[in-house]
Order: sequence, then C-alpha cells, then structure tokens
Amino acid sequence: MTKKPGADLLDGLEELSAEECWSLLARQRVGRIAVIVGHYPLVFPVNYALDGRHIIVQTGVGAKLWSIQNHNVSFQIDSVDPDNRTGWSVLVRGAAHEISAERNPELRARAEAAGAMPWAPGEREHLISITVDGITGRRILRPRP
Amino acid sequence: MTKKPGADLLDGLEELSAEECWSLLARQRVGRIAVIVGHYPLVFPVNYALDGRHIIVQTGVGAKLWSIQNHNVSFQIDSVDPDNRTGWSVLVRGAAHEISAERNPELRARAEAAGAMPWAPGEREHLISITVDGITGRRILRPRP
Repeated sequence: MTKKPGADLLDGLEELSAEECWSLLARQRVGRIAVIVGHYPLVFPVNYALDGRHIIVQTGVGAKLWSIQNHNVSFQIDSVDPDNRTGWSVLVRGAAHEISAERNPELRARAEAAGAMPWAPGEREHLISITVDGITGRRILRPRP
Repeated sequence: MTKKPGADLLDGLEELSAEECWSLLARQRVGRIAVIVGHYPLVFPVNYALDGRHIIVQTGVGAKLWSIQNHNVSFQIDSVDPDNRTGWSVLVRGAAHEISAERNPELRARAEAAGAMPWAPGEREHLISITVDGITGRRILRPRP
C-alpha cells in the first residue's frame, strides 16, 4: 500500500483524502445509511449510486423513508480483508431529502443504470438523495502483527 | 435458502429470528458501531467479540470512546453477495459502557482470544461493552431478477 503525499498517519491509520473517498464511493454498490430513530442511531444496508456528488438510494414507503426524510444521516462504506487484517472505511455526513421519482424520471433512470436498483424485490418508488456535508475515510496502513 | 418456520416474509425480505441473529454475530469478527455525535449518526467499523450476550470492543482514547460511553448505540453486521444480489444484515440496539481493562483482565483476555483485538495498531486500552436492548435481522430471500 502506497503512502499518499499529504496523508495523515495516526497509529497506523491513514487518513484518506476526499478525492480518494469519492473514488471509493464511485466503485461500490452497497453502502449503509444511518439514521437517528427514537434516540438510537440505526444502520441499514442499501444499494446506491452516485449522481454527481449526491448519493441516491431507492426505497419503499416505510419507517426508513420517514425517518430519513430531511434529517441528518450518515452513509458508510467499507472493505475488510480478514486475511491481511486490514481494511478501509469511508463515512459521509449529510442530509437526506426525498425526490419524487415520477417527477424525476431521468434521475431515476440514471440512478438505476448506475446501480441504485435494490436487490431486494418489492416496490421502491421513492428516491432519497443525500447531500454531502462532509466526507472522511481511514485505512489500516500497517496491521497489528 | 430454506424458509424458517415462523419467519416473516415481506417483499422477499425474510426476518431473522433473534437466535439466528446471535448465531451470525458469533461468527463475524468485524462489525460497525453507530453513535450519535453532534446530531449525526456516525458509523465506525470495529473488531469485536461476543462475551455471553454482550458485544465487546477494544478502543483507544478519543472521540469515539467519549461519544460512545453510556449512550445508546447500535451495532451492525452484514454480509453481501454481489454475484447473487443477496445478503443479510443484523442490527443490535443497545447501550455502551466502558469497562476498565486493567480491572477486568479476564474479560480482556477472553475478548482478545475471541477476536476483539483490533487489526489497527496502537494502544487500545479501553473495553466497551454493549448491553443489547434489541436485536433484529433481515435477509434477501428472493432477489429481484
């Protein structure tokens, strides 16, 4: 693993640049959306796609949708390599808004083409767009022996 | 995939029993702890171990520790199979407490033997124990074609 110029090192954890975080976000198709529901931070895996610098998730009507709408959320992806005891994680802080899929057929088509169509079956008529307030990432650079 | 007796089906999502959730928790070694920090739900991957029905995480001193302590947290694990467009997820709601590793060397030894020793290097002198308030899980039973 190459140390990037300007990357910060703390106890073998390398801080990823925002550009690296975006590049990792563009390559994955499953992430986790975290929302605050009843004083608990809850985490749900979702299929997603990037549309420019927004994260697009398709969802059905339900608790997930209503708790997400217009609230602070975070969105997290990671990759874990048990054999080498290493991995990385990217965490986005942002705000979630519902977008009408009917009024935004182009966005829906773009998002589905890019991988946002959920693997889980059932109606998923709602688009959630996450506007990114901050993005950070870390990688284990030198795993504990 | 066999439909378990009593499992609920909703749009191809199978609800996992608490026993299945515990069994999956016992088999994984990396999970994600979610905490509320500054009105955002944040998510950090961690190595963990089960000690009875508590989730044990080792951590260093830092924002993570102080935001977790005595607060509602959630703990999440999942497994994703992109080839078959399927996966499962387990979500624990609970409360996190710090336990002195120095005063609880046996717990620390048990947790490390069970896999809680972090892959990331550096001092990890603090044990976080998550007391489980609720545990739920879901699996994609019939992926969208």
